[in-house]
Amino acid sequence: MTPVTIIGSGSMGTALAEAFLKAGHPTTVWNRTPARATPLAAKGASHAEAVENAVAASPLVIACLTGYDATRQALGPAAAALTGRALVTLNSGSPAGAREMASWAVGQGARCLDGAIKNVPSAVGAPDTLLYYGGDPRVFAEHLATLRVMGGDTVHLGVEPDLAKLYEMAVGATLLPALVGFFQGAAAVQARGLEVSSMVRFSAKWLEMIISLLPGYAREIDSGAYSDPEASVNLFLAGIPYDEDLGREANIDVSWQAPLHDLLKRAVAAGHGEHSISALTELLKKPERAA
Amino acid sequence: MTPVTIIGSGSMGTALAEAFLKAGHPTTVWNRTPARATPLAAKGASHAEAVENAVAASPLVIACLTGYDATRQALGPAAAALTGRALVTLNSGSPAGAREMASWAVGQGARCLDGAIKNVPSAVGAPDTLLYYGGDPRVFAEHLATLRVMGGDTVHLGVEPDLAKLYEMAVGATLLPALVGFFQGAAAVQARGLEVSSMVRFSAKWLEMIISLLPGYAREIDSGAYSDPEASVNLFLAGIPYDEDLGREANIDVSWQAPLHDLLKRAVAAGHGEHSISALTELLKKPERAA
Repeated sequence: MTPVTIIGSGSMGTALAEAFLKAGHPTTVWNRTPARATPLAAKGASHAEAVENAVAASPLVIACLTGYDATRQALGPAAAALTGRALVTLNSGSPAGAREMASWAVGQGARCLDGAIKNVPSAVGAPDTLLYYGGDPRVFAEHLATLRVMGGDTVHLGVEPDLAKLYEMAVGATLLPALVGFFQGAAAVQARGLEVSSMVRFSAKWLEMIISLLPGYAREIDSGAYSDPEASVNLFLAGIPYDEDLGREANIDVSWQAPLHDLLKRAVAAGHGEHSISALTELLKKPERAA
Repeated sequence: MTPVTIIGSGSMGTALAEAFLKAGHPTTVWNRTPARATPLAAKGASHAEAVENAVAASPLVIACLTGYDATRQALGPAAAALTGRALVTLNSGSPAGAREMASWAVGQGARCLDGAIKNVPSAVGAPDTLLYYGGDPRVFAEHLATLRVMGGDTVHLGVEPDLAKLYEMAVGATLLPALVGFFQGAAAVQARGLEVSSMVRFSAKWLEMIISLLPGYAREIDSGAYSDPEASVNLFLAGIPYDEDLGREANIDVSWQAPLHDLLKRAVAAGHGEHSISALTELLKKPERAA
């Protein structure tokens, strides 16, 4: 059982440390505010007060902080101890942040993987929970069994250190807009005096329907062939007045959708009216900037 | 086998007629532009050139046009023939449109159900395909086996004639925003020279994760208890700069998200920063208007 150090005892870091403890790995934890790490000590973790000691305790160091700035700041005093260790960063951030982080850590002699855990803390450790990584393939191969403790669906995307953040952001871009759409629907159902819970089974099925559309949309975007649509831009445009009707009736603010409607109208103006809704992708690409 | 009339031979109307023909129902079709209905005649449907004859041909008339205005216009000449028949409307529209439609059709002596088919034409007839209805419960009970030909998961929401449109719009509000999020991610992956298809499996899993969150969010909204969050408003707010970073790097227009970010900031200003993201629902409710 490879000893593991978890840097950061927020809700996700705590869930990760608990998964390693449960799997029987010698687990060291560190947190900037030590009090947040003490519950883990009570569960069998070694609690290092100094980050140098935390890093020195394990060949595999997993940092789960809020972002790359926080990670760099936390690991700063432990830079020398990173030499020869495998460092896995699991924070949020942009691809540019991931590249800078890897460049710094490799400069300290660490071998790096950057990953993304695409789920909530309560899903950590489940066989179906997905984590994907970009970076040093030797670290991935060497520690695969240990990495799988965090989630059974563990994937190496490639050697580039920012691939996990690229995919995390690309994939994650559905979350807030989909949720706000759900919350708008919830407000409409509530305005009628009905329980929001009554729409959950229908919303779940609707999102499953959306999932079933994604392979087709991806093919359309990859090939640039938008002209054989199952649902056209015009079809979406036709639905706008109904939303405005319901907004008035239920006294809901639907104005957050205005840029989406504008996107539909610009797509029609660009000749995409009878094309697949996936043609909106082209509208999101800005023109190449002059050099 | 109950004879069925399908008013409208668009892609969805055609799929419905094909499902009834396949199931062995005597099927009559009508379309404003008759040429669009002729392929169905070749498959065994009776093609009525006059809408009065189409309506008179079956005890169960299913209208699948673009909206209530089109449905009223199409059925206008057949108003007298509607007496005593079951009319099922499956078009898009708002709850207000559904109420007006039902009021008109009941005035002609029809018994009405208004429904929503929450899927694409190619899913018509599948055992798992969902259709839900509001309106006359006797029509639903009497024709349930026939209605199930269109999709095995057939639900009666209640007697109010606009319930299906209320739920359809509430549930459907996730579609366009989620898709635009996916298209933004697709543009980011493409800007890196990677295939969009490579992200589909991750996006599918991500949407499944979102589905798993909905029951919890619905409970929070139903109870108004937002203070024990798995993901807080502040957590979402912290991710905004990464989106802007990636937008710059990939030359993608992410400005459509501005109202979503504004919503997050207004939620923080209203004291919801450490509350669940589902508290955004409260921000979407407009203040009661003065009488």
